Amino acid sequence: MKKNRLRARGLSGLGEFGLINSIVKASRRASSGALALSGASVIVPNGDDAAVLDVRAAFGSDCLAISTDMLVEGVHFDCGLMSFYDVGVKSVTANISDMAATGGARPLFCVVGLAIPVDINVENVDNLLAGLRAAATKDGITLIGGDTVRSNKSIVISITIVGRIDKKSVVERGGAKAGDLICATGAFGDAAAGLRVLQGQRKSKRLCRARYSDAIRAHGYGQLVHAYRRPRHRLNEAILLTARWPRPTAMMDSSDGLAACVRAMSSAADLGAIVNLRDVPLSRAFRRWALSVSGGPLDPKFPWRTVAEGGEEYELVFTAGPSDVPALKKRVNFSVVGEMRCGKGVDFMLNGKKMAGEWRGYENF
Amino acid sequence: MKKNRLRARGLSGLGEFGLINSIVKASRRASSGALALSGASVIVPNGDDAAVLDVRAAFGSDCLAISTDMLVEGVHFDCGLMSFYDVGVKSVTANISDMAATGGARPLFCVVGLAIPVDINVENVDNLLAGLRAAATKDGITLIGGDTVRSNKSIVISITIVGRIDKKSVVERGGAKAGDLICATGAFGDAAAGLRVLQGQRKSKRLCRARYSDAIRAHGYGQLVHAYRRPRHRLNEAILLTARWPRPTAMMDSSDGLAACVRAMSSAADLGAIVNLRDVPLSRAFRRWALSVSGGPLDPKFPWRTVAEGGEEYELVFTAGPSDVPALKKRVNFSVVGEMRCGKGVDFMLNGKKMAGEWRGYENF
Repeated sequence: MKKNRLRARGLSGLGEFGLINSIVKASRRASSGALALSGASVIVPNGDDAAVLDVRAAFGSDCLAISTDMLVEGVHFDCGLMSFYDVGVKSVTANISDMAATGGARPLFCVVGLAIPVDINVENVDNLLAGLRAAATKDGITLIGGDTVRSNKSIVISITIVGRIDKKSVVERGGAKAGDLICATGAFGDAAAGLRVLQGQRKSKRLCRARYSDAIRAHGYGQLVHAYRRPRHRLNEAILLTARWPRPTAMMDSSDGLAACVRAMSSAADLGAIVNLRDVPLSRAFRRWALSVSGGPLDPKFPWRTVAEGGEEYELVFTAGPSDVPALKKRVNFSVVGEMRCGKGVDFMLNGKKMAGEWRGYENF
Repeated sequence: MKKNRLRARGLSGLGEFGLINSIVKASRRASSGALALSGASVIVPNGDDAAVLDVRAAFGSDCLAISTDMLVEGVHFDCGLMSFYDVGVKSVTANISDMAATGGARPLFCVVGLAIPVDINVENVDNLLAGLRAAATKDGITLIGGDTVRSNKSIVISITIVGRIDKKSVVERGGAKAGDLICATGAFGDAAAGLRVLQGQRKSKRLCRARYSDAIRAHGYGQLVHAYRRPRHRLNEAILLTARWPRPTAMMDSSDGLAACVRAMSSAADLGAIVNLRDVPLSRAFRRWALSVSGGPLDPKFPWRTVAEGGEEYELVFTAGPSDVPALKKRVNFSVVGEMRCGKGVDFMLNGKKMAGEWRGYENF
């Protein structure tokens, strides 16, 4: 109890204005060069009611892309399974990934809303902010402002990111045509498997935690855990894919899982789709983990559902005309995992057989 | 329990994409005319990872103003004291007020993040969204996207609003000089008194709620309650104040209270300030309420602190050179309530005497 009071006083002493100012100042220092390059200049920097930017140079011939993401502790992240720093990095990564998915919009700046319980450890808030800052700075994004408020229970992070994109590069979700191939960057299932491994570790805490941690290392599951805690975005790949003709016909990121992507893209285009699970790339670490819980890819216990529905990763899932795929492959590494076709519904196929059940991926409600 | 399950299913059936799409579609229908006038056109409308706007026409000679606000149920609003519709309206009003405070930025579009508990009544969510929509539409703001997620307990609303403003109109928080007069639109204390009245009503619920409600009406406290539930913003006044020379030297909105404004403006300018409480405008309803809890303005029980620290209202508090005040008064109605001066700290004076204690206004931590 005493400890909690101490913590509360620490945050209280900082005050709201202090908190936002400290984030914004550090971020501006780190990325002022990037902002100058982007052609937008900050007129009113921070702390004021609204940030003001001069965007004449930046938006002379471009469009503005805006995206917002909300992350709730206990729903979207679990501070018991990853560090506060990781949470900060991942929140920004998720938003950059939205910029990527819209056709490779170059993120310029972001605003952050933070709702934090008053009894939180100040060090944890610092680490969260450091993660946000580091991830933003790495990609040349300026944190131009925000709002820090008190929450009742959970941490809630809200990030709104603004980027610029050439009108020609914009790829919508619903642009696919029947016959277009479904393509995906990277491997699937790693992050979801990493989450399972961590959850398993937590369960075994009282039994034999040390032995379980050893098992993570010995089996090479570290890669899976890393994929969950520090997923990467595919902004560069998106920029390369949409820079010139031919371009993808539809695109999304796989934050809610491959299945949710294919379902959303086919439904937006009023089409159906098939996905061949054997064409979905799996990492070595994932295969090793999958073999520890099943007899092999054809075993009904093989975690294909984790591959298709897992999410928590930020790969690009896009469609392209079959004749355009070779040209796109010269620019970016990706796999063809399925095909859009007339009709309705998405079928997940394994060796010519349709998988049972309706696979949807992550849904909030 | 059964009722809760039913509610949860209602929201669940709608799904995240359904929820966002329904908000965005309705808002676009209502304000597409306004967006066309503003010169920004929506290229990718909704549901996609990020909204994309063509802003060439809109930002040819202007700056971009961006502001974000986070509102947590139980901290910033109380669904027991106001309807969900009111909460929606007030959230947008708070953001428009930020645009006003930056120097009268014209709001163009906003994105909304909503974290809602899964067991919430769907009707309440509908009413909240209807309030958001109505307030946005009324001022020609297009809701271009958002994120709806599940929360553990409280509703959290995050709004990011983007507007345009001429560089010359931007008024910063720290621009005041010693000798500048402190000015304020409207009356102060109404909303905070309305909140007290409502809290009193809730306490008396079991005793004699009907009689208390009658008392609200009979005493004319309805105006105070309305000021709390449906505060107005001062965007038009801000636009008029900053449209041409002379302009205010510093400006804020009074969402955290008059005291917090004066304190923030004087500290940003490295100055001190005095506020003459007898010059702060009070409404008739507020005077009536204040006399019911005190003997009069000179009574130590008179709620001057509610006037200065109450907040929950969105008046403009600004500073201006003494010789500029008459010109500004020709454009907008306001009162002169104090003066910036060399030194440190803000003194609240009543008939030449300094009030005791340090008045700060609302602080999150």
